[in-house]
Amino acid sequence: MEHASLKEISILITNSFANRVDRMKSSDIRELLKLISADVISFTGGAPDPDAFPSPEDLRDAIEYILSIRDKAFQYGITDGLPSLREAIIRFMERQMSIKAELRNVLVTIGSQEGLEIVGRIFINQGDKVAVGLPTYLAALQAFNLWRPKYIGVPVDKDGLNTEILEELVRKHRKTRKPIKFVYVVPTGQNPTGTIMSLERRKHLLEIASSYDLFIVEDDPYGFITFHDNIPPRIKALDTEDRVIYMSTFSKIFAPGVRLGWVVANETVIKQMSLAIQAINLCPPNFNQYMIQYFLDRGLIDRNIPRIRRLYKEKRDAMLMAMDEYMPREVSYYRPDAGFFVFAYLPDYIDAKKLLYYAIDKEKVAFVPGRSFFVDGSGYNTMRLSYSLPKPDVIRVGIERLSRVIREHLK
Amino acid sequence: MEHASLKEISILITNSFANRVDRMKSSDIRELLKLISADVISFTGGAPDPDAFPSPEDLRDAIEYILSIRDKAFQYGITDGLPSLREAIIRFMERQMSIKAELRNVLVTIGSQEGLEIVGRIFINQGDKVAVGLPTYLAALQAFNLWRPKYIGVPVDKDGLNTEILEELVRKHRKTRKPIKFVYVVPTGQNPTGTIMSLERRKHLLEIASSYDLFIVEDDPYGFITFHDNIPPRIKALDTEDRVIYMSTFSKIFAPGVRLGWVVANETVIKQMSLAIQAINLCPPNFNQYMIQYFLDRGLIDRNIPRIRRLYKEKRDAMLMAMDEYMPREVSYYRPDAGFFVFAYLPDYIDAKKLLYYAIDKEKVAFVPGRSFFVDGSGYNTMRLSYSLPKPDVIRVGIERLSRVIREHLK
Repeated sequence: MEHASLKEISILITNSFANRVDRMKSSDIRELLKLISADVISFTGGAPDPDAFPSPEDLRDAIEYILSIRDKAFQYGITDGLPSLREAIIRFMERQMSIKAELRNVLVTIGSQEGLEIVGRIFINQGDKVAVGLPTYLAALQAFNLWRPKYIGVPVDKDGLNTEILEELVRKHRKTRKPIKFVYVVPTGQNPTGTIMSLERRKHLLEIASSYDLFIVEDDPYGFITFHDNIPPRIKALDTEDRVIYMSTFSKIFAPGVRLGWVVANETVIKQMSLAIQAINLCPPNFNQYMIQYFLDRGLIDRNIPRIRRLYKEKRDAMLMAMDEYMPREVSYYRPDAGFFVFAYLPDYIDAKKLLYYAIDKEKVAFVPGRSFFVDGSGYNTMRLSYSLPKPDVIRVGIERLSRVIREHLK
Repeated sequence: MEHASLKEISILITNSFANRVDRMKSSDIRELLKLISADVISFTGGAPDPDAFPSPEDLRDAIEYILSIRDKAFQYGITDGLPSLREAIIRFMERQMSIKAELRNVLVTIGSQEGLEIVGRIFINQGDKVAVGLPTYLAALQAFNLWRPKYIGVPVDKDGLNTEILEELVRKHRKTRKPIKFVYVVPTGQNPTGTIMSLERRKHLLEIASSYDLFIVEDDPYGFITFHDNIPPRIKALDTEDRVIYMSTFSKIFAPGVRLGWVVANETVIKQMSLAIQAINLCPPNFNQYMIQYFLDRGLIDRNIPRIRRLYKEKRDAMLMAMDEYMPREVSYYRPDAGFFVFAYLPDYIDAKKLLYYAIDKEKVAFVPGRSFFVDGSGYNTMRLSYSLPKPDVIRVGIERLSRVIREHLK
């Protein structure tokens, strides 16, 4: 009998997914986080400020409630999520977003990432065309990549995704064997630009979807992290044809540590998503669902939203003020109206990824190079700066350091 | 401009995943649960008895601990799971299972279902051959089905998966273009038969894997729900070549409501699994992980295991005693040494699925028809009876009712 060595089995295993591994690359963000030591000021991740988390008092009350229904809270749940939580989400959406939904339209997910995962699983066949922003949220691309779509990049400007250009692209690809199947959009606090899509464009996007028979995936993690009062309605709230698959998360308005999000969509879509989740992880955790339900039912999440907005607005202001003061004029950047990020463009002879290693090593400051957010291979001279976690005075010091690094690389 | 109607978009959506929908069928178990009203005695699901859950006192203490580290517990975690929890799992495995592992070999999952999902995702290309028991756990098949494997069924008898027949099959398929890639096995408390694979067969399975260069997926949810003292070691504990991907769950030894499980495997496998999880849901919930870690660190899970064993042994005994008393001699069944289920064979002219509707309707008792556990299309005359949730006296009444239904259908 011959015995395979450990090395050989390692090769066997590696070969098994060789054709899939290029679609599952670790994200730049994650790999970078590993480089960062405690003395580095990090503008990398999108972690919320713990000051935005629910108070220990409210949590203690919620947990007493959960313990009072221990037999249910610690048991398996149903795949779609607890009906009582879904009802609470429906009421929350109605009062806070003017989105109307029935129980059969709502599904609870493990963060909104799982929503993206099941969209990819259900809708994308190899070569299917998906329109996304230039730039767009890289973890959505990661979730979709496994299914090998063909991305159609649509420029984003200060009013969000440019729907005029989208319509041209939709028309163009309509004549090919594969028309564009859906549009993925983060309309409020676009990741990474922080822009808010205008009402006109939201309406135009719905018209395009209706005219050319597409659907829209509206990813809305930052829908409540907004910094002025003139925020247009969610696209889902304007959707009269059930063309929008809306997804959001409790990570930013409650806390990421419970890993819960939700999806609102056409009943047919929800049914298929439910089958997908059944195979992936059976159901979301009941314990966590009862916790969120407790907070929603008592209006505690609603009550916390204005405080959370002020918290991040102060940080955004600190970052913009420091950038205005320190950044060389060769650097341009969006002034975010929502979300966690400032997105900056360096002179086109600077590669942000190369700059990053220098920034960490020499000046102890870190950011996310923007290239991974662009499906067309551009953006090598861009960077995403997150202001969500560091304190305002730390943000100021970090931007000063970063500005110094950039100045040293100017021609 | 033409507008697509809601009906049309519904068709559009349906067509999008038409080629995938047959691989995502809702399981018999789940669909059946919907039929069952409160007055039906249900032997269907595999839900644990809430009496096995941790005590409210211990939970309250754990939660005070979690609140004391609120900033970390409610924040995003890392994809592989909290290092402190993985360390606690490593110590638990070492003292309870004689499995040795390093941090880089351990990954935390959303139940062991997510372990199955990522095994499918990483290893199965269309047409790859996977050996499974006849019968085997149907939710594993559900997770694998999406990737379109070809199943090779291997008979299970009272000593578990028949490795003599497995070896013949491995030899036979080795000569084809596609050899068998891995063996999926539930060695302790096999689902649905409740059998324990003998030590000889465990060793033989490892020899086969080594000789023919396969790997083994050892699914071990019931490894602690055992009813005698002579339990062979986990296959992973005997594995000297790193050929076993071991997975288990806290659902049966803690509670399913936290949805946490873990995987132990070769570092290369774990790295790829981690990339898969990153795209699926970023990371498991920190809150839940700290809860389990609290219990593991204090030995509270270890301490609960003997009590849990007694609890389920009493229920198994109640079911077997009632079956011995009431079942007609035409019905044969396994006497489970572990796990949650009795698996029964009816005379071959009885279709268990047809019987089920009659059983629910006329006698208010429910079970899972066994056909879905057989990859070769057999098993239409089998049924899985779960004793994990109902109380012993209810089990007795339910078996009496079920026996009556079967008697009425005997020729």
